[in-house]
Amino acid sequence: MTQLSRRRMLLGGAAAGVGAAALTACTAGLREDPEAATEAADRARLAIGSDTVPFHGAHQAGVTAEPPAHMTLVALHLREGADREAIRRLLTVLTDDAARLTQGRGALADTEPELAQTPARLTVTLGFGAELVRRVAGRDAVPTWLRPLPAFSIDALEDRWSGGDLLLQIAADDAVTVAHATRMLLKTARSTASLAWRQTGFRRSRGSEKPGTTMRNLFGNVDGTVNLRPQDDDFASKVWVTDGWLTGGTSLVIRRIQMDLEGWDRLDGPGRDQAIGRRQSDGAPLTGESEFDEPDFEAMGPHGFTVIPDFSHIARARGDDERPTMLRQSYNYDDDLTQNGAGTESDGEISDSGLLFLAYQADVDEGFVPVQRRLAELDLLNQWTTPIGSAVFAIPPGCEEGGFVGETLF
Amino acid sequence: MTQLSRRRMLLGGAAAGVGAAALTACTAGLREDPEAATEAADRARLAIGSDTVPFHGAHQAGVTAEPPAHMTLVALHLREGADREAIRRLLTVLTDDAARLTQGRGALADTEPELAQTPARLTVTLGFGAELVRRVAGRDAVPTWLRPLPAFSIDALEDRWSGGDLLLQIAADDAVTVAHATRMLLKTARSTASLAWRQTGFRRSRGSEKPGTTMRNLFGNVDGTVNLRPQDDDFASKVWVTDGWLTGGTSLVIRRIQMDLEGWDRLDGPGRDQAIGRRQSDGAPLTGESEFDEPDFEAMGPHGFTVIPDFSHIARARGDDERPTMLRQSYNYDDDLTQNGAGTESDGEISDSGLLFLAYQADVDEGFVPVQRRLAELDLLNQWTTPIGSAVFAIPPGCEEGGFVGETLF
Repeated sequence: MTQLSRRRMLLGGAAAGVGAAALTACTAGLREDPEAATEAADRARLAIGSDTVPFHGAHQAGVTAEPPAHMTLVALHLREGADREAIRRLLTVLTDDAARLTQGRGALADTEPELAQTPARLTVTLGFGAELVRRVAGRDAVPTWLRPLPAFSIDALEDRWSGGDLLLQIAADDAVTVAHATRMLLKTARSTASLAWRQTGFRRSRGSEKPGTTMRNLFGNVDGTVNLRPQDDDFASKVWVTDGWLTGGTSLVIRRIQMDLEGWDRLDGPGRDQAIGRRQSDGAPLTGESEFDEPDFEAMGPHGFTVIPDFSHIARARGDDERPTMLRQSYNYDDDLTQNGAGTESDGEISDSGLLFLAYQADVDEGFVPVQRRLAELDLLNQWTTPIGSAVFAIPPGCEEGGFVGETLF
Repeated sequence: MTQLSRRRMLLGGAAAGVGAAALTACTAGLREDPEAATEAADRARLAIGSDTVPFHGAHQAGVTAEPPAHMTLVALHLREGADREAIRRLLTVLTDDAARLTQGRGALADTEPELAQTPARLTVTLGFGAELVRRVAGRDAVPTWLRPLPAFSIDALEDRWSGGDLLLQIAADDAVTVAHATRMLLKTARSTASLAWRQTGFRRSRGSEKPGTTMRNLFGNVDGTVNLRPQDDDFASKVWVTDGWLTGGTSLVIRRIQMDLEGWDRLDGPGRDQAIGRRQSDGAPLTGESEFDEPDFEAMGPHGFTVIPDFSHIARARGDDERPTMLRQSYNYDDDLTQNGAGTESDGEISDSGLLFLAYQADVDEGFVPVQRRLAELDLLNQWTTPIGSAVFAIPPGCEEGGFVGETLF
């Protein structure tokens, strides 16, 4: 794959259309006409709203798409009477809604189709909990890893952010688009399933940063430097399931990690960098010059300790084989304490803020669990982070036109 | 003012920089090189993050800036001991923070300055409640309209969304920028004031729609067609206060209007259009062809009724002199019911969604109240909308470098 076509892929097919707009503008004679230049720039920007990510394909598109600015996660509980046939009907209609909405068309029974006309790279990704798989195909179809994660000592999990039988992951570069799609899909689902929880996250807006820039979390740290990338040789084997009904699918671990921003503020710069093992300023490992330099975990400092502390986050996160085991696509969250009661101002906290940690891997027990075990056991960062929500879903493969997401389970 | 310079003003000074980027790209020979075209478009888009709105000036910049995609409103209560001098110190530091953050620099004691480097048209607007004005300058300095609004029959106000002594309105095209600025400003304020409420709203992302497009609310309706615009002859007289310490300032009415999306869905298209007086599809008045056509409230239909129902929203909103009396800059909100407890799924509601209605006017009693009285008395739309929060603030004028917002009160 060439450099250019890879970039196009990561941009979700946007580049071609934008290039055309810029070309037209150029023909109009930009150099002589600043107003034409402005209009060309406006057109380039407007492509942010009209960009689409193809819905159909071997994999669900939301897994590998460059993460858009806004994401809503909705988990549903199946209603008591929802049997195999009801679930099939639900998945068929959800697939149809998703295929339309992601391409900028209203859902079948859309009461506000005007709000659907700005797809803004919308993706809709469905995930299944164990209960859904069991009701459709019996206990044997449930992957061994599709269960609540083992309890970690650092956890303070709350039911209201945990579990669920069916996941809708709705992401786009426009918050109105996400709100509308969420509402349409929930309307479709309501007769068969009820709301378990909803979580909303954000990253930098499209056009705020160069595509591919590692996101920073609300601690100010780059988050996701060591990550699987679609072009990596081991990407497919580590992300996609290769047998059974989930072939071409994956798993998704969702952790709501509350971050103690007030406590973090009391640390000085060097203290923060030691806890992470990277410099906050540029994301470089403490032994390196720039973000993507390989950390040297053996390098010793003047006082006989390693430069990167053994208990720092990056030292503990790294496993034996040095390659990442998950595709992380996390989002920031920043919710209002006056609303959700997760704390009070007198506790010294003024918001419920943190990270919606999302990780895809072919097998949760091989991808996520070993890393989390090492981190839970000992990671300086644990002092300022608390997992308060946890969920695991099987992410079925994609489907072709005329099919539906989850059809391989039937 | 020419068409071009007006547009530049509305774009918040962005156009010039973007034009330059496009020009450079053009010089590089776009026609022959699609990759160069892509890069030019990327650069045009990246200006979304680096765009700034000047902080200093006669008015606070957030009042007339083209509303960015994301807005957080924070209301604070002054602590008991916060006297005139403490308030002066607070306003001085908040002004300094705001001046820095809006220009893409970290706040003075910023622990995550990396998050400040993407201003994305950030504006920070301060507003004062009656209690703050009284503590600084005595009872006589409080404008007569700076009090809770008169009770309207349609209100179902909740304390947790109402009132406050000091308002921070923080808006930008990037949600990370808004989250970071909010956090820094709250940290500055904490010793003098405590959190009363926080509300977060959104509009279309920058680049999703043509600048100046009237927003659509979550009912799918265009919202804000008849609005004061900075270029209007009567803008200054209707928006800016012209005497006393508030000269060059204005007032802000904030209403949290919950919208019954489920109920609205049960209306058919014509029923919706009749309730509003405009077509949902294109926003045109029922007597017109396009959004900005003047509605004809006298035109009669075949059955002897006016084409635009007398009780429709636009008929009731319109006053005697036909000109708008407020500058409206509203945002959508869509909060999670599982968090804020505003309802339960079994009530038939799946979210707390609606409009953060914001209106600026020189005098609340002349600008907002008469309109709201007519609407509260009779407006078909009331059946699907409920004001659940309400607050009024005095918005002081802007300041020059070296000054602070609110200095005219001292």
